[in-house]
Amino acid sequence: MVHRLDNETPGPTSALFAEMSRILWHEVVGEVIEVGSGVSKFRAGDVVGVGCIVGCCGNCRPCKADIEQYCNKKIWSYNDVYSDGNPTQGGFAGAMVVHQKFVVKIPDGMAPEQAAPLLCAGVTVYSPLNHFGLKQSGLRGAILGLGGVGHMGVKIAKAMGHHITVISSSNRKRDEALDHLGADDYVVSSEGARMQELADSLDYIIDTIPVFHPLEPYLSLLKVDGKLILMGVINTPLQFVTPMVMLGRKSITGSFIGSMKETEEMLEFCKDKSLTSTIEIVKMDYINTALERLEKNDVRYRFVVDVAGSKLD
Amino acid sequence: MVHRLDNETPGPTSALFAEMSRILWHEVVGEVIEVGSGVSKFRAGDVVGVGCIVGCCGNCRPCKADIEQYCNKKIWSYNDVYSDGNPTQGGFAGAMVVHQKFVVKIPDGMAPEQAAPLLCAGVTVYSPLNHFGLKQSGLRGAILGLGGVGHMGVKIAKAMGHHITVISSSNRKRDEALDHLGADDYVVSSEGARMQELADSLDYIIDTIPVFHPLEPYLSLLKVDGKLILMGVINTPLQFVTPMVMLGRKSITGSFIGSMKETEEMLEFCKDKSLTSTIEIVKMDYINTALERLEKNDVRYRFVVDVAGSKLD
Repeated sequence: MVHRLDNETPGPTSALFAEMSRILWHEVVGEVIEVGSGVSKFRAGDVVGVGCIVGCCGNCRPCKADIEQYCNKKIWSYNDVYSDGNPTQGGFAGAMVVHQKFVVKIPDGMAPEQAAPLLCAGVTVYSPLNHFGLKQSGLRGAILGLGGVGHMGVKIAKAMGHHITVISSSNRKRDEALDHLGADDYVVSSEGARMQELADSLDYIIDTIPVFHPLEPYLSLLKVDGKLILMGVINTPLQFVTPMVMLGRKSITGSFIGSMKETEEMLEFCKDKSLTSTIEIVKMDYINTALERLEKNDVRYRFVVDVAGSKLD
Repeated sequence: MVHRLDNETPGPTSALFAEMSRILWHEVVGEVIEVGSGVSKFRAGDVVGVGCIVGCCGNCRPCKADIEQYCNKKIWSYNDVYSDGNPTQGGFAGAMVVHQKFVVKIPDGMAPEQAAPLLCAGVTVYSPLNHFGLKQSGLRGAILGLGGVGHMGVKIAKAMGHHITVISSSNRKRDEALDHLGADDYVVSSEGARMQELADSLDYIIDTIPVFHPLEPYLSLLKVDGKLILMGVINTPLQFVTPMVMLGRKSITGSFIGSMKETEEMLEFCKDKSLTSTIEIVKMDYINTALERLEKNDVRYRFVVDVAGSKLD
């Protein structure tokens, strides 16, 4: 069942040939079936993961600082062109060749299907909490938007010992947030009195809303030195007035996935905390239905496609 | 010549009675003429300074963290109501009573008239460079806007050993920036090729522009993790698209004057670096002309009013 293509032969020094047993596009988990002669980190049989990126220049300031996700020459794991000129095909393939730098070991005891959503959604929330000094217990945060990234935000922040409020535009996800994800509080953003109670109380807000929204109601919830961390790609300009940031030295910032180093740390953290993703496992013959349901936002919270367990041919 | 009012008698434990010899509104320098019995930091004859704030609650999180400028109950040194119910009258008075917490010693050897503009403009640029970890030499920064705060920004950042580019809307201040203030480079913001040369090159931008302006041309100049530090109070919303901050983990932030602790540090720093303000000294009989010229932006860069040396009555 391994789709072994010519361009998937491992290179002489550092490529890795893996059969992927759990695959979803850019959050890929599988088993190593062959390694190049220069590969030191892995051996056949290891369960490993690959995220959004499979290449970077190695020479720029971000690469040298181990934040290769900010390299201008990074290579996406799908829909991009690899350094050998071939297209990158993502995780719907039966196998991939990936440089060992962009491969992480899935910790022993962590279920592969649980690990997959951590490789993008998980590290996307772990990375800014790590980078901006927001890992210590006792902090108060809010998550805006409860999709794939937002739900991991609640789980990871709760595992760090934070007090987490989910803020949403409706009551629709209240039970989900409080009962299933373990959030401490749930506030509907249009309820002025409830928002007022939160004023000046938060160390950070992880904002996963992917469409235009006003920032000021949320900036006002931050303490002095609080951080509004944007994660939604929104090409309609967002707006704020300068006193809202100046008078509390607040920051409007953003973050983009995470580094390989942070991915490794995050997997260990999730294993230590027994943190699991909320997923729905499907086979390849369900993929068109899954994509239709994704368009309707009808998934709780990630589909994981069992490629190896599907009849592909 | 001391205007001694009843409410200017020092309190029993911690008030300070000072005759101000160099006074400008909220950047006040003078000589201590009498201290309350609980005052330990100062004695008569000391040359001291007072900035924008003369009171705070002492109990909130910012106060306990020695960043009392962010206390919600701070008392402005002018046009506010003091804890005794009397109005605060700023630095155009012949004398002031101020709690010792809000008084700093002017370092020996620093001219009082030089010290005055440091007490607001100076600490306003020193504080964010200090807080955001931007004091080390070798950084690359830009200053937008060359007024009272901007000119101190160039001087203080140059004294820290930074490479400083002044970015302006016209060539009008080129000679001033390069020849008099010591900036390393000067770029007109409408010159696309020159702006392009600066792309991804700056650790920070201190943005003192006090009116609406686009942020994206400036965000694009920042390196990964670069900071756009806003200092102009602008009530027209500023705009940006989220990928501009996310894809380089850039921050849009702001800062508001500085703490008393930072004011002390900044004065010592300026003394060590022999840093001077660029000022024009006037007497009280010139004050109306000075205010008219201020409205026309016709001062280089601060008027300092010699109150003690003026015939007031």
